[in-house]
Parts: sequence; structure tokens; C-alpha cells
Amino acid sequence: MASERIIIGIGDDTAAWRGSELVQLATIDSLIEDVHFRFSWCSWEDLGHKSLAVNLSDIAAMGGHALYALVALSCPSTVDSDDVVSYYRGMTQLALEHDVVIVGGNLTTSPMVTSTVAIVGEIRPDRLMTRSSAQPGDVIAVTGVLGGAAAALALLESDGGSPLKVPDHLLDSLVRPHVRLHESQVMAGLGVRCAIDISDGLLGDLEHICARSSVSATIYSAQVPHVVDDEIPADQQTMLALTGGENYELLFVCAPSLLEPVAAALNCPVTIIGEIGACSDSPAIVVRDARGMPVKIDRPGWRHFAP
Amino acid sequence: MASERIIIGIGDDTAAWRGSELVQLATIDSLIEDVHFRFSWCSWEDLGHKSLAVNLSDIAAMGGHALYALVALSCPSTVDSDDVVSYYRGMTQLALEHDVVIVGGNLTTSPMVTSTVAIVGEIRPDRLMTRSSAQPGDVIAVTGVLGGAAAALALLESDGGSPLKVPDHLLDSLVRPHVRLHESQVMAGLGVRCAIDISDGLLGDLEHICARSSVSATIYSAQVPHVVDDEIPADQQTMLALTGGENYELLFVCAPSLLEPVAAALNCPVTIIGEIGACSDSPAIVVRDARGMPVKIDRPGWRHFAP
Repeated sequence: MASERIIIGIGDDTAAWRGSELVQLATIDSLIEDVHFRFSWCSWEDLGHKSLAVNLSDIAAMGGHALYALVALSCPSTVDSDDVVSYYRGMTQLALEHDVVIVGGNLTTSPMVTSTVAIVGEIRPDRLMTRSSAQPGDVIAVTGVLGGAAAALALLESDGGSPLKVPDHLLDSLVRPHVRLHESQVMAGLGVRCAIDISDGLLGDLEHICARSSVSATIYSAQVPHVVDDEIPADQQTMLALTGGENYELLFVCAPSLLEPVAAALNCPVTIIGEIGACSDSPAIVVRDARGMPVKIDRPGWRHFAP
Repeated sequence: MASERIIIGIGDDTAAWRGSELVQLATIDSLIEDVHFRFSWCSWEDLGHKSLAVNLSDIAAMGGHALYALVALSCPSTVDSDDVVSYYRGMTQLALEHDVVIVGGNLTTSPMVTSTVAIVGEIRPDRLMTRSSAQPGDVIAVTGVLGGAAAALALLESDGGSPLKVPDHLLDSLVRPHVRLHESQVMAGLGVRCAIDISDGLLGDLEHICARSSVSATIYSAQVPHVVDDEIPADQQTMLALTGGENYELLFVCAPSLLEPVAAALNCPVTIIGEIGACSDSPAIVVRDARGMPVKIDRPGWRHFAP
């Protein structure tokens, strides 16, 4: 239990806990009002949940166990203290689910809300999953169903930001993403050595794997598990699944023989969507449709400073 | 060396390093444009320096060694990439001085600049300095000279934000604070068990110690080492030293017999400024002038959501 190792929690200059000789993992991520979320469709409780979730998802991408979180919240001085309480409630509920302890916080004024969380986790050295371990001949697979968050965002932004017409299951995947921490620990334990969480979009994140592993990849678009909803035109569902960000499902790469035991051990959909090839000149990734024809992709995923 | 323990640096979902069984320390802090700094007097390089410094100072307050930093910078998309490079240069220079490795980063757009740094450090369990270890009969001491940052800020804000009339040594203490990491490790090694860094102002931070240790304190204002500068009226110099925030000197509390060896071992001024008493009804802190008369204090230090 992470809590049993704590020596000093919130209330001193730093938190303090008993260390271990396992590999230590750490990451940081910010969510910014009107850049990453709007309060018209994301409640304070959602924001607390999501701020922790996006960091937990990074720990999941390594196969690790999340332990301790530090939270820096900045918001206008006019914000109601109940809203700050709601934020911490959303975060604490998710933290409890995953045995994560919030050990430090920083609260400051700011013209608009910025929520930054850093998290420390750990993992056995032989379990580490990295972006650099893909090999030609490996299969590419994903957990869950892709495109829900992007579909919700598309509906919200086309509808002036009102969440009323967005189906709950889509909105939930945007503001309350499920984190595949347990699933990643299982796959890491079974021998998977290459994974990434889908935060930038499937193709964007696969690009990271190709670059760090010096490999190429082929994706079969018809196999990509996409969200199905009457609100989303059929032809857009696959494209949202290929390029939509903030998904937080796991994209992983492993030897074909590993796929069956992994799929059998996980309590979520696991789908093969492509395969890794040798290093190639650009493009590193080719997407093929059901007839084997190359699919043209406009914009692979989330980019900082996008126009 | 912190760098020798790194397994994965920037470029994967999380950083990874070999753990140790020492006590682990972690803290997070944000600096926000026009709340904590203005670009009219704080350069991008200064901001990088200070963002790391304020976190290092928290590790110093515990007596620890700083190891790994995570950086979340958000800024408008119009910001020049050279400015971001300057920011990281300012941070990296300070990191190198203290053998700290920047292992992770997050860069996002935002209407104004927010710089958040989280840092992980470690310490031998018997060396930990906390806010809760002050005892009646202990002396209260500080490193260095107080009030420089607050004096600079007062001059800047009274002069419409122009740094030209602010003496360099004052501006430096505001934008390039010196961090007492080495000094804190020495005092922790000599047996000091109670310290805090002066970020909220001497009296504000001493309040934290009194609350956590259940003690009272007397401060002799004439003994408080204050900045001396012609630009600052003499009667304000002591008040700035008592209440001015963002100082990042160390306030520490120890048995009287420890003071001499600590002062002899440190390469910086060490000044006794008061003493710890038994728990009292409010006020926990009494400030007395050179004649022994109580000094009235208007506003003890930096407060979040201050009017």
C-alpha cells in the first residue's frame, strides 16, 4: 500500500515516503481551461478526475504502479471554494480506486484555471514497457474502443459547447476517461515490452513508437475498433478512431504469439489492428482500407501550437 | 550522480530511474505570469531559473538532495521558440549546479505563461528536517539576509513595473534566488531537525512551524538581518525582512548548543533572531523591538487569494 510508506503527507515543505529499489517512474501533465476543456461541458469534479487520469495513463503506458500524486491548481480568486472541493473529490475518488495517494498540493491565483498533476510510480525493471521496443514482425493491438473522446469533442465544438446533445457514453470518455492501469500491469507481466497510451491519437502515438523503435507500421483501418453512435457519420467514425486524441486506451506491440494470452487475461476488448515492419523511408506508417488501398489521413492527432 | 541512475529520460510516456531505499521527497510549485512575475522585469531565463529554484528550496527545507525535475510550461502559441529555449537554459544552468536532471516536460498552449515544476529528491531518514520538530527552549535562526525580493517587488510595483531603478542585488534576489541546498544538507548532517524555507515571509513561515510543532515564538526584530539599500526607507527594511515573501533563505530551529557548530560550518551568514516557547493561546508569535516592546505587524507574508 502506497499510504503505508508515507512519512510526511501534505503540510510540510515536501512530501516524504520510504523509497524502494524498484525502478521509479514520474510524469507531469497540465489541463488548461478553454485549451483542453471548457466548464460548459467539464465539471470541476470531472476536471479533478481527468487531471489525475491523464497522468495515471502515462504510468499505465509503462506497465507501472502509480503511487504518489502532486497537484498544482491555479484558478481565479473568484472561484467558489466548493468548486475546489469538487475538484479534489473527483481526483480523490480515482486515486482511491488505484491506491494512489495525493501527497502534495499547490494552490495559486490565475486568470483562468490550470490543473497540473505530477505522479510518481514504480515497476520491476524486467516489466518496463517502452516506446523503443517494437520489432519487425510484431503485431500492433489496442485495448478498448477508440474515438469516443474525439467524437464528443467534435459534437461539442460543432454545437457551441453544449453537452446536452452529446450521448453520455461519448462525453464520459472525454471527461472521465477510464485508465488501463490494471490491464497494463497484466500485459507487462505476460511479457509485452512496447506500449504507449493513446493521448495524441492512434496514428500520432504510433508515430512515436516507430520513431523511437526505428521501425515502420501498417494499420488496417477496417480492423480499428471505433465508437458507434448515430450522432457520428459512419465515414467519420474510423477517422476519429485513427486520429482522435485524449483516448487513453493502450496501444501495444508484441510478438504474435503473445497476443492470445494477453487478450485472454484482460477484461476488455483487445484488437489486432496492424503490424510492425522494418525501418522505411517516410511515411513510417501506412494505413490500408478493407480493400488494401492506402487511406489518406489529414491530420494525425493532437499537436501543440496547432494553427 | 542522479544522471547515472536514469533508465529513461525525456521521450517516453514517463521518465524512469533506479530507485533507492532512502526517504523520497517530492514537491510541486507554479509561477504564473502577472501573478508571481511580470516579463517587464523577469526574463525567460530568469523564469526558468526561478521555477526550479522555488522547488529546490523546498527540498532544501527538508535537508534533502534534489534529483529529478519535471517541467510543465504553458504559454501562448505566439511565444518565440527562442524564449522557450532561454527558459530551459536558465533552468538547466541551475539544475547542473545542483546535480539535478530534468527528466520530463510538458508544453501546452495557454492564454498566459504558467510554469510548473515538480521535483523528486531523497534523504537519509535520520537527516529529515520538518516543520513539526521545534521545541520550547530552541533558538530560531536564519541564513543570509532577508527582504531583498520583497524590496525589489515593492520598488517595481511602485514604479510601474520598470526594473531600471531597482538595484541589481535586489532584483537578483527576486528573479534569481540563491537556493540553500548545500547549507541545508550541512545543517541536517549536524543535527538540525526543524527548518522551513522563507517563501511566505519570515513570520508567515514561522507560523507554520508554530502550528505544526504546537509551540509559540518570540522574534527580536532588531536582530533580523535585513537588506540595506538607499532606495528603501530604513523603517521599512525590517518590516520587509519580517513579512516579505519569496526569500528562499532557510529559517531553522535548534537547541542553542547546535548553533555555533552550524554557523561555523556554513559559508553564509547565520543569525539568531528569536526563541521558541511553550504552546500559547494566540498570538503564537510575538515580535519585540530593541526596547522589548511588541511590534505591530500588518500583514504577515504572502497569502493566496489575498484581496
